[in-house]
Amino acid sequence: MAKELEFLTKRSEDYSKWYNELVVKADLAEQSDVRGCMVIKPYGYAIWEKMQRTLDDMFKETGVQNAYFPLLIPKSFLSREAEHVEGFAKECAVVTHYRLKTNETHDGVVVDPEARLEEELIIRPTSETIIWNTLRNWIHSYRDLPLLVNQWCNVMRWEMRTRLFLRTSEFLWQEGHTAHATREEAEERAKMMLKIYADFAEGCMAMPVVQGVKSETERFAGALDTYTIEAMMQDGKALQSGTSHFLGQNFGKAFDVQFLNKENKPDFAWATSWGVSTRLMGALVMSHSDDNGLVLPPALAPLQVVIIPVGKPANMPVLNEKAEAVVASLKALGISVRYDNAENKRAGFKFADYELRGVPVRLVLGMRDLEQGLVEVMRRDTLEKMSVSLEGIETYVKDLLADMQKNIFTKAKAHLDAHVYECDNYEEFKQRVKDGGFFLCHWDGTRETEARIKEETQATIRCVPFGVEQTPGTDMVSGKPATCRVLVARSY
Amino acid sequence: MAKELEFLTKRSEDYSKWYNELVVKADLAEQSDVRGCMVIKPYGYAIWEKMQRTLDDMFKETGVQNAYFPLLIPKSFLSREAEHVEGFAKECAVVTHYRLKTNETHDGVVVDPEARLEEELIIRPTSETIIWNTLRNWIHSYRDLPLLVNQWCNVMRWEMRTRLFLRTSEFLWQEGHTAHATREEAEERAKMMLKIYADFAEGCMAMPVVQGVKSETERFAGALDTYTIEAMMQDGKALQSGTSHFLGQNFGKAFDVQFLNKENKPDFAWATSWGVSTRLMGALVMSHSDDNGLVLPPALAPLQVVIIPVGKPANMPVLNEKAEAVVASLKALGISVRYDNAENKRAGFKFADYELRGVPVRLVLGMRDLEQGLVEVMRRDTLEKMSVSLEGIETYVKDLLADMQKNIFTKAKAHLDAHVYECDNYEEFKQRVKDGGFFLCHWDGTRETEARIKEETQATIRCVPFGVEQTPGTDMVSGKPATCRVLVARSY
Repeated sequence: MAKELEFLTKRSEDYSKWYNELVVKADLAEQSDVRGCMVIKPYGYAIWEKMQRTLDDMFKETGVQNAYFPLLIPKSFLSREAEHVEGFAKECAVVTHYRLKTNETHDGVVVDPEARLEEELIIRPTSETIIWNTLRNWIHSYRDLPLLVNQWCNVMRWEMRTRLFLRTSEFLWQEGHTAHATREEAEERAKMMLKIYADFAEGCMAMPVVQGVKSETERFAGALDTYTIEAMMQDGKALQSGTSHFLGQNFGKAFDVQFLNKENKPDFAWATSWGVSTRLMGALVMSHSDDNGLVLPPALAPLQVVIIPVGKPANMPVLNEKAEAVVASLKALGISVRYDNAENKRAGFKFADYELRGVPVRLVLGMRDLEQGLVEVMRRDTLEKMSVSLEGIETYVKDLLADMQKNIFTKAKAHLDAHVYECDNYEEFKQRVKDGGFFLCHWDGTRETEARIKEETQATIRCVPFGVEQTPGTDMVSGKPATCRVLVARSY
Repeated sequence: MAKELEFLTKRSEDYSKWYNELVVKADLAEQSDVRGCMVIKPYGYAIWEKMQRTLDDMFKETGVQNAYFPLLIPKSFLSREAEHVEGFAKECAVVTHYRLKTNETHDGVVVDPEARLEEELIIRPTSETIIWNTLRNWIHSYRDLPLLVNQWCNVMRWEMRTRLFLRTSEFLWQEGHTAHATREEAEERAKMMLKIYADFAEGCMAMPVVQGVKSETERFAGALDTYTIEAMMQDGKALQSGTSHFLGQNFGKAFDVQFLNKENKPDFAWATSWGVSTRLMGALVMSHSDDNGLVLPPALAPLQVVIIPVGKPANMPVLNEKAEAVVASLKALGISVRYDNAENKRAGFKFADYELRGVPVRLVLGMRDLEQGLVEVMRRDTLEKMSVSLEGIETYVKDLLADMQKNIFTKAKAHLDAHVYECDNYEEFKQRVKDGGFFLCHWDGTRETEARIKEETQATIRCVPFGVEQTPGTDMVSGKPATCRVLVARSY
């Protein structure tokens, strides 16, 4: 088996290269011929669809409804919210014309100069502006609130250096936007959505996260508070995996979304927005996978079980018959399963290929085992092989999948916990941060200190973490008093 | 009740105005401030989601997998397939720059002239070019075929005159793209997908369609054959509701997608593409709805049953208790239901509002009925009211919903059948076509005749219909011999 796998770089050799190779070789995604834009391949998309379905159900349970707003945003909308334009308007795709025409030599097309737009349109980098411009007509009274909408769509932020899933010019995401009658309700919603993201990450993706609030510098452009979930990759770097923003009345005021409150007085609506993207695919890969390929939590695996026969051609009818019975019993329990008896590939190649793709459970059916009523079971997370009775195999597999979902989380949680350090000495920090890990450090709260850490160590303040007992102390960089510890790490 | 509904124009007065008003007033969609782009509101989007889910399951049952390809297409790709560029490249949104910058007066943003793209990018009007450019790397051997992918996405075709759902610059759709080793298999797939569209339209949307093949003039740009489903709106006009294209080897050759066939010889892959869009939302509205508002087939209704109490405040506790029991019994059968006991709206207003939104079944709970163990049931398709026993009401409603799904189809089918005419006289045709209807006319097969009909009557050849016994005859326009009858109609 080792032979087929040699082509994948080992994590210990070059973690970054391992990731890039794995995403392509496991058929998750590839670069397109359009600069910075990826193609999400069917196997990768099937994982994303499972993420979507789970999140969508979680959103809807809290009363959120899906809708769809235009892809293109008038340039002038971006300038309405002052901070927002600073953060977003710069690197984006600009539509200036609406027609092409055949060129003079009749062998191609050129932009028709007569079809210039009066006002340029921007491909949405995020949709606060166009959505709040629309909400002005939807919200008149407190009875129209809260208004809870979400859209699944593509967005575009021009990137010069891209990596599949982690940083692409076009990516897929969901963006939720809510409007509320009171500050308290909006803040509560922003926190509620962060909790949903954390529950999803830990439950469905088996990926432990640290929840917290961003520093002012790292806030979403236009937000009063940005809440975040930060996951730790196997190299100890942080990956921001979802954010939820409390936007105050900034967009309500910028787009004049006023309503009559219960006291019949006009007020501006309070806002939140929150999103996760195909970046989660990158986080998933980097959290769990190994040198043999993908390791997928069963909840997200497009194919949960593969059955492979091993035997002489003469024995195939017996193996096929038994396999079909096992397939039926697994399907009856809602488990996705494929029986792969293709003759044009050797069993060893199949083993390696399904390991590469992270299929959680492999059953190998052979005559000798079969005669004893046994089947070989391999679990992808630990690569352990077990000899298991065919009688009741469906229940065994069901329990095994549940156990794997837990085990993958437990392993990642142990890795995270083992790499969170309190640190009070800047020199020590500078040395240790190179090897990754999350550092809990006292911070004086100034932009200057934050900027200095970033410049000198490439690490950033990821968040002020929730659930950490905070004691005052001394900033390790400036020596000034600090009220709390923040999470500092290098990040993707 | 009549009072609340006066605001909706009657179909008989102005069918077009009725449609425009209904789409907005039933909260399906509205124009955005971006020319030609619509906002799909939560209620409309919920219907679209049900369509998506049903179609997606149907596609997947035939082996199709979802994927995602870039939004932006290099301008030069469009020129590769000669006919394709003629049909599509002209009216599209062109991205020329990738950055904005703050203007000189620091109160807005302008396009940064230094961030001009070397090659302009087009927002996809359809994705054959970018997908076939990608497939070149996915297909090497006949073993890689068939390759069956689909994407749910947004597309853009610049339109000067737009109507919600029917014709918008940006719309949502699915586009399926398949590659095959043989001509026969590709043709079969194109026909298979047409059948799926027809089954979906008739089964799920309760909308009867005529299946057929397009004339050369009306073919998709780059196709050898375009299959279509044509539905008849209540005004007798045709609405093309889905198309499936047999593309031959045109894109295989244009993008050099070669594979080794079973005889180990290189050949170009054979292609199909097929799509339906949010245009189906317009078709749905115009097929079934009436002067009171939407009529939705139960299979697509976001809310299938509404329960409204009518009574004095003192009786509300009793009504609430009974309603909750009915809600629970309906939910147990998988029926979506809402109990609306909001006190700030009169019952009459609620009745009109749910009729406008096309909720299929309304239950009115009143004390007098309740004392006799009865409830008033109103079915939206016929507006009939019935007094029904509360005992077993859930089964009654379940059967009623099934009956309504059939009845809505039957009614639309009767309308279609009553407005399909054989016609052999051009003068008669010219008169009658103004009132709508599908005309089966002999056609000599020439572009000249087709163009003349279009110019003189605004009617077009919708398709050569399948399932019609074809006999040779004489073209009603040119008097030349004709081998078959084609379907001619005015259309949306």
